[in-house]
Amino acid sequence: MGVFGVIIFLFLGSVKGFSTKSEPCTYNIGNTCKPALANAIFTTIAFLLGALTSVLSGFLGMKIATYANARTTLEARKSVGKAFVTAFRSGAVMGFLLAANGLLVLYVSINLFKLYYGDDWEGLYESITGYGLGGSSMALFGRVGGGIYTKAADVGADLVGKVEKNIPEDDPRNPAVIADNVGDNVGDIAGMGSDLFGSYAEASCAALFVASISSFGTHHDYTAMSYPLIISSMGIVVCLITTLFATDLFEIKSISKIESTLKRQLLISTILMTAGIAIVTYFALPSEFTLFDFGTAKIVKNWHLFSCVAIGLWAGLAIGYITEYYTSNAYSPVQDVADSCRTGASTNVIFGLALGYKSVIIPIFAIAVAIYVSFSLAAMYGIAVAALGMLSTIATSLAIDAYGPIGDNAGGIAEMAGMSREVRERTDALDAAGNTTAAIGKGFAIGSAALVSLALFGAYVSRAGIKAVDVLTPKVFIGLIVGAMLPYWFSAMTMKSVGSASLKMVEEVRRQFNSIPGLLEGRARPDYASCVKISTDASLREMIPPGALVMLTPLIAGTFFGVATLAGILAGSLVSGVQIAISASNTGGAWDNAKKYIEAGVSEHAKSLGPKGSDAHKAAVIGDTIGDPLKDTSGPSLNILIKLMAVESLVFAPFFATHGGLIFKLL
Amino acid sequence: MGVFGVIIFLFLGSVKGFSTKSEPCTYNIGNTCKPALANAIFTTIAFLLGALTSVLSGFLGMKIATYANARTTLEARKSVGKAFVTAFRSGAVMGFLLAANGLLVLYVSINLFKLYYGDDWEGLYESITGYGLGGSSMALFGRVGGGIYTKAADVGADLVGKVEKNIPEDDPRNPAVIADNVGDNVGDIAGMGSDLFGSYAEASCAALFVASISSFGTHHDYTAMSYPLIISSMGIVVCLITTLFATDLFEIKSISKIESTLKRQLLISTILMTAGIAIVTYFALPSEFTLFDFGTAKIVKNWHLFSCVAIGLWAGLAIGYITEYYTSNAYSPVQDVADSCRTGASTNVIFGLALGYKSVIIPIFAIAVAIYVSFSLAAMYGIAVAALGMLSTIATSLAIDAYGPIGDNAGGIAEMAGMSREVRERTDALDAAGNTTAAIGKGFAIGSAALVSLALFGAYVSRAGIKAVDVLTPKVFIGLIVGAMLPYWFSAMTMKSVGSASLKMVEEVRRQFNSIPGLLEGRARPDYASCVKISTDASLREMIPPGALVMLTPLIAGTFFGVATLAGILAGSLVSGVQIAISASNTGGAWDNAKKYIEAGVSEHAKSLGPKGSDAHKAAVIGDTIGDPLKDTSGPSLNILIKLMAVESLVFAPFFATHGGLIFKLL
Repeated sequence: MGVFGVIIFLFLGSVKGFSTKSEPCTYNIGNTCKPALANAIFTTIAFLLGALTSVLSGFLGMKIATYANARTTLEARKSVGKAFVTAFRSGAVMGFLLAANGLLVLYVSINLFKLYYGDDWEGLYESITGYGLGGSSMALFGRVGGGIYTKAADVGADLVGKVEKNIPEDDPRNPAVIADNVGDNVGDIAGMGSDLFGSYAEASCAALFVASISSFGTHHDYTAMSYPLIISSMGIVVCLITTLFATDLFEIKSISKIESTLKRQLLISTILMTAGIAIVTYFALPSEFTLFDFGTAKIVKNWHLFSCVAIGLWAGLAIGYITEYYTSNAYSPVQDVADSCRTGASTNVIFGLALGYKSVIIPIFAIAVAIYVSFSLAAMYGIAVAALGMLSTIATSLAIDAYGPIGDNAGGIAEMAGMSREVRERTDALDAAGNTTAAIGKGFAIGSAALVSLALFGAYVSRAGIKAVDVLTPKVFIGLIVGAMLPYWFSAMTMKSVGSASLKMVEEVRRQFNSIPGLLEGRARPDYASCVKISTDASLREMIPPGALVMLTPLIAGTFFGVATLAGILAGSLVSGVQIAISASNTGGAWDNAKKYIEAGVSEHAKSLGPKGSDAHKAAVIGDTIGDPLKDTSGPSLNILIKLMAVESLVFAPFFATHGGLIFKLL
Repeated sequence: MGVFGVIIFLFLGSVKGFSTKSEPCTYNIGNTCKPALANAIFTTIAFLLGALTSVLSGFLGMKIATYANARTTLEARKSVGKAFVTAFRSGAVMGFLLAANGLLVLYVSINLFKLYYGDDWEGLYESITGYGLGGSSMALFGRVGGGIYTKAADVGADLVGKVEKNIPEDDPRNPAVIADNVGDNVGDIAGMGSDLFGSYAEASCAALFVASISSFGTHHDYTAMSYPLIISSMGIVVCLITTLFATDLFEIKSISKIESTLKRQLLISTILMTAGIAIVTYFALPSEFTLFDFGTAKIVKNWHLFSCVAIGLWAGLAIGYITEYYTSNAYSPVQDVADSCRTGASTNVIFGLALGYKSVIIPIFAIAVAIYVSFSLAAMYGIAVAALGMLSTIATSLAIDAYGPIGDNAGGIAEMAGMSREVRERTDALDAAGNTTAAIGKGFAIGSAALVSLALFGAYVSRAGIKAVDVLTPKVFIGLIVGAMLPYWFSAMTMKSVGSASLKMVEEVRRQFNSIPGLLEGRARPDYASCVKISTDASLREMIPPGALVMLTPLIAGTFFGVATLAGILAGSLVSGVQIAISASNTGGAWDNAKKYIEAGVSEHAKSLGPKGSDAHKAAVIGDTIGDPLKDTSGPSLNILIKLMAVESLVFAPFFATHGGLIFKLL
């Protein structure tokens, strides 16, 4: 991060040759703005602040989760309701921490930066974009590195423990069991948290930047300009109220109520937030104002902005519910996949891939409607606030999402501590519901990533001074087709990373079973630390190639091919990446739950496929293992690809606009 | 086709209310052009001619292939070299038939239409675009229907015959064996042929249309305008010479020489054709002329056009060679996939998917370079002639491609006729090389489909009167993201179609084994016809939903959302579809050859994974079965999606421009 901070400073500082002279403003014509060197310095500071906030949130999130895991197990001795409340509250603590922390640091930074910038809003919010880049860069470690960590451990533990040695999941004799449990926290807690934090920071920065070059900037209307932050504040209040519904107003008495309670939370927060947005919009915004719309001025009314935020919010709910339909084994899609296991693993994989492809349709229409409405009403500012609308209930979404790994680990602790069958059954029920909510959380993260990166794309285009991104020009078109290829390249890397890291884990686990006498009989302790070390080392080493692809593509494309090709690349990777991300995570989720459906055997149909160990179940296990890297590594990592390239382009836009396109200049 | 012909007539006729009055020309300002009603009538005629030519080519291709199959088996008794020459010559006959037939009908049609149109070049070549639509519509049946047919039969035959009953491939006791052999001809001969014929007809039509609105049109320079047809004619001559190298100049003496000979054919035809293009360009084109470049005039030199055609040609060769690298088991990518079978089917699938994703990178860069160069030098005309350059060696490519199923079926006949082991070994060698060349053919078909649909997209944009396709407008952006989703929707449908059709086949084969006494012992004959009927019915029924998606999307998008959104959809589906098509066919090809690598056991490494029936081999078989629908149905079918939507949009462009965008008009 330090090295990248220096790169940011050098690239941005060089735009005007490290000039310390004040300059005429770009948008606020007639006024003078701060020198380019100041913007370079403050962008670097904001970048480091964003990265630190993300690290802090991830660190505290993992702390909370690891405390919560053991507590949930203990509460599960009393009743499933009490265990649920503990797991859900812990998730909520993490959600609120992340949302509040992100907002606080952003708010304080803006106010401190303002001491220097005064009325230079353009410069102030240009520098603040560094915050989004910082948050998103850390998400690269959390999502990509975390994803490789967790799946290397999971696949490695399963392939030897469950398949070869026939010992149960989470058995303390398995040397990789601790690495697997740590992985849940690294991948699902820190990874998901940093991903959503990145989206949140980026959406806020994009919205603030676009707001600063609107009539708010010229009229110095600080309240109206802070509208994005006020929405997020209202979101925290709404989520606080929502949480009470799950923890205090309705008590969970039976296992079957868990999933519907979690789903209800999403609905309640969305309804309450719609009212919240209306209030905020009425008080914070003037009834009419002017926005910058790629070179032309656009008049926007306050209820237009309300519609933008609201449609983003409701599109998020729609995506969540559709994801649930395609990944929960209560509905026919997953049951069909389970049924296809009758004829073996091949048909299971074919039907699972087809399910993932099909599950893309409705989310894309939901995103397209949200984009059309908000884009038409308020240009790129509309997209940015629609993203913020989708993310406004982030505390509730994270609570629901973090609940999953907490329940999963609680089960692991119950197994390892040799607790009673009843406790284990209760924690299993928590875990099963967590599987579906994890898929919802991923759908939500992808949807918001799509809106956020479009908003960042718009901000980049404005800042790079491009008037149109015309597909009918060769520079843009080659960007578009190469950009659409990048998610495939990136996924190829992350999938192979998981494959080779888990092969190393398999070798180490096999080695320990062979060389430690009495391990399988439970008379000797395995060397847990060496497995943890393998996952840690592998995740850090293996994330370098995909990380380099993400970080270097905008720099290379911008410097050598210029702003137009880079715009094409961003658009191409966005529209292509979002499809693979959705289909990969839903395919993986569906396989996981198809396996659970056969194992649980609650219906006549499920019983006919089972029990555990039947041919159909074996076929389902193969699908589940294939799905692991798809749903927890390569799929969600694509969020980072599309967001990080966009925010990096935004930050470096002035440099590319001035010095970029070397190859075309030479030709 | 008849119904769709009526739709074309009604839509196009209604543009000017079925007016029979001559009108001022759009591009050739100052002159009068023929009435809109005439264009509607002639477009419909051209459409029917294109469809009929495609049907005829497919029919004759299958006739040739079925004659050739038996002859190849007989020649294999003499030597592998003689069998090779027979198979290759038969493929070449089909290639020349298709190329010559397509060119002849097009040339005769243009000259007949000219009797009516006279100097109205715009109207003439607008009507001729119907020919491309006709050819491509039939390809929907060939590629999608044929793909479902062949894989339903193949998967069904394998799942019961090889897996359950443990009888060899192509055993006459298997009731689905004839359906499987028929399927090779339907899918690989008629499907591939109609696909490439469609590309060829569309590329010619797009190039001719763009040429007609250039200075050639205003100067009435018929020779220069016919440049696209002259390139194709030169291609036939070059391929004739090239064929002699394989059949007469070099004799194949050993099995190991087959693959390199086929590869050499590609290289020879490319080198000869480069010289051919130079000659044609020098004699047919004026040294300088003016093109229409979306509203502005662009001056182009004849050597610019030479570069466009040549870069298309060489990009095709690059794609072919890269495809071979990723799908032949002579290189490390496929060997790595085979190696991953050690840890089971899951890792095989993960590595195979990652290989497919990775194999996209270089072909996309090759296409991007070809697009950049030809687009920059000669706008959309450059793209169209680059596509024609890639397709100019179509006779050689089809010869190489058709060689595969001929060799495959020759083996089937040898097995069913109970011929000697030696004969079977020779036909197996022909088949193994055919697997790789089939993958090359697919890569080539996808690459040309990408260029063709971009050329059609350009022609559509010109004809719809759009000046820019700006991603920064909401109408275009939602088109782009929804368009990028369509290949997923389409693939979900085609994959499920194969799945459910093959399940029906499995049931029928099982029924016959259970109800026909003495079938397994070879004392009774199975009912081959009922299996053929299942494949036929299933392919026709199951292709309706994907076919409807392709045919209706442009009509709905154009009518309700207008020309800008439709432009976005075309661009989105092009840049997204080409990636899935390449990765799906290479993943499938790699799995197939990884299995063959383990079975053949030619190296120490391969022997350590085998023999047939080992755990690693079983894992490889699962991958191979998953790959079947990917490489032979859903992957190549995407060519049709991107091309057919583009050519349909081009044909209906005047209607959409006049009456389209109903929803936005209402809002």
